[in-house]
Amino acid sequence: MKSIYLDNNRATKIDPQVVKVMETLYNDNFGELHALHFAGAKSRKIYNEALEKVYASIHANDKDTITFTSGAAEANATILYSTYLNYILTGRKNSIIVGEREPESIMQMVDFLRSQGVRVHTIPVNGDGVIEHERIYDYITPRTALVSVSMVDGESGAINPIEQIAQACSKYEVAFHTDATHAIGKIPIDMQDIDISYLSFSSETLHAPAGCGVLYLKEGCDLLPLIRGNRSQAEALRGGPLNLTGIASLGKAVELASDALDFEMQDTKDLRDELEEKLTQIEGVQSLVPWALRSPNTLLLAVEGVESEAMLYELNRDGIAAYSNTVYPYGEWDRKALPSAMGLDKKLDHSTIGFALSRFNTQEEIEKVVESFTNAVEYLREFMPKDQK
Amino acid sequence: MKSIYLDNNRATKIDPQVVKVMETLYNDNFGELHALHFAGAKSRKIYNEALEKVYASIHANDKDTITFTSGAAEANATILYSTYLNYILTGRKNSIIVGEREPESIMQMVDFLRSQGVRVHTIPVNGDGVIEHERIYDYITPRTALVSVSMVDGESGAINPIEQIAQACSKYEVAFHTDATHAIGKIPIDMQDIDISYLSFSSETLHAPAGCGVLYLKEGCDLLPLIRGNRSQAEALRGGPLNLTGIASLGKAVELASDALDFEMQDTKDLRDELEEKLTQIEGVQSLVPWALRSPNTLLLAVEGVESEAMLYELNRDGIAAYSNTVYPYGEWDRKALPSAMGLDKKLDHSTIGFALSRFNTQEEIEKVVESFTNAVEYLREFMPKDQK
Repeated sequence: MKSIYLDNNRATKIDPQVVKVMETLYNDNFGELHALHFAGAKSRKIYNEALEKVYASIHANDKDTITFTSGAAEANATILYSTYLNYILTGRKNSIIVGEREPESIMQMVDFLRSQGVRVHTIPVNGDGVIEHERIYDYITPRTALVSVSMVDGESGAINPIEQIAQACSKYEVAFHTDATHAIGKIPIDMQDIDISYLSFSSETLHAPAGCGVLYLKEGCDLLPLIRGNRSQAEALRGGPLNLTGIASLGKAVELASDALDFEMQDTKDLRDELEEKLTQIEGVQSLVPWALRSPNTLLLAVEGVESEAMLYELNRDGIAAYSNTVYPYGEWDRKALPSAMGLDKKLDHSTIGFALSRFNTQEEIEKVVESFTNAVEYLREFMPKDQK
Repeated sequence: MKSIYLDNNRATKIDPQVVKVMETLYNDNFGELHALHFAGAKSRKIYNEALEKVYASIHANDKDTITFTSGAAEANATILYSTYLNYILTGRKNSIIVGEREPESIMQMVDFLRSQGVRVHTIPVNGDGVIEHERIYDYITPRTALVSVSMVDGESGAINPIEQIAQACSKYEVAFHTDATHAIGKIPIDMQDIDISYLSFSSETLHAPAGCGVLYLKEGCDLLPLIRGNRSQAEALRGGPLNLTGIASLGKAVELASDALDFEMQDTKDLRDELEEKLTQIEGVQSLVPWALRSPNTLLLAVEGVESEAMLYELNRDGIAAYSNTVYPYGEWDRKALPSAMGLDKKLDHSTIGFALSRFNTQEEIEKVVESFTNAVEYLREFMPKDQK
């Protein structure tokens, strides 16, 4: 049975062209970045090439700072610790505003900061699953230390109104952070268009190996480093030896993602749309975020009368990898489930199923998924307790 | 010209057997660790195998916690932030003790903590370049939050008296951390033998790609996570998606390092000893740490009348990669230079040259290095200002 992988917002297959880049690093010595010998020089060349590709991929200004991290989680932690230690603990600012469905690396950090006495305000999503940007004005003041709202929700694909949020932050001169992990390669990102102080993203959604990420810092903004050590990156925002394999991979991956952006926004989207159209024809199956407000690769469904976990098992039996954030095996899930956050029946909270496509998916795969999903809904509803039918 | 790489304490060539492990991850989907589908199950298998290899490599107890990080720098930052936030900022403890030649990830963090008002005591090295463990007793009290001294100094190869330091910490019930980056694969490490609260090490010295590391936490000790996020590691000490390539590589690398430990301690050491014997026959060239107190792969020389930077350039001209920590291109080098720390002439601070061998070096290479080094000393001394001769 050929497997079908539709969990691409959490981990992706490494692109063969990224593999080729990695392979160039295997048969030789690549030294520490600033080492005064041939092996250091080779690393500097690779590092600089990757860095240029990242600058190009988000249209960053030469004077902005781009630092490679171990992923968006580290970049996000850097921003939040810096905000806490440099602005809040010193009394210069007094609070943080975050979206209610930020990634766990944000939600768990703000939970921790709350436990340290930091005031954290949370902005809800509206009936479309998108952050209600007007609500920023309920909380924002010149004493706000940071607003953090991600560009795209990795579970639902909802595209947040970043421009309006950035405007509110500019007006009050408040730092604005956006996690772009689920936006890069899916929708255009242009740092010249929007006033963003900090941007972060990760390699694992980009057909590169997980374990590398980017922390962007706009010219004129500041940050304390989180991980210190030998300053392998010129800008000194992150110590520790350079993850050259990860950096070279990520450089190639953002280049490929930029090249594939039209494909992602048209061909991948066409496949996703077909999947959406066919699955939502099933009674009691609804797509949670309107088509026009959603990233082109993502489809999050609520399926009446079906438990997410059971559906994942049924699909897996047919070799299909989908996802549901309701079935995570740890109990500290802090984000609100989307259906009830949107004002839908709370019963649907445990009935979400997500499909995140990539440029490697095919028409044939989508047809197979439609068939399996349709059968699974019918099969699983037979086992429902009568009072839930 | 075939190049000769002797800078293995900062970056190493990836072992072909580690490459093979990496290649198994290229042509398939490997899911997020807890994903409920085939691709998650494949990742769990790889993760668990790597984890077992790390436990075995340091003889950790099943109830100890091992967390993969992006490297020793992140592990060290985790320990120091946790100590600060959980013990010092809360008033439960009041100070930190570190060796004066700890890695930069420690030195720069304690510098930052000092700027936050934390009391940090520094223990000097003795005339052999080894930490003076008795000096711990000058500062340690039950209110000490942490003692951090690395097992092996990565610049000089000096092996620190970890057992005695651990005893002092046990006596006062103080947490003890040791960075083992330059010890693992070089000398035996057995967590059953010594009472160590936290241990960290990194992939980049182990013939694995840089970008992965280990944070060990002894049963009964505690730590706050530094990077939070989806809990991909069961123990929840580190969030963010799993760096599966890095973890699988590091698992294989520690296994290979354990297998090669005898080789490293005998064959690599024989080559190092030959290099040491021949180079110290040159007038005004001395080895800085006594043979018996030093890691088997490392040789740090002070070369009278020769600037480190010039020597590195000369060696590089002959295709030889060596190192000197005195020539780093940033000005914030916080560690004392070894010669003056040991009580030698301060003039020697800018005349150190290090060679860090690996199991891939050969007899032929060593002979070539002896020849190049000898010529370079003679050549460079000709250019010395007369008053320094």
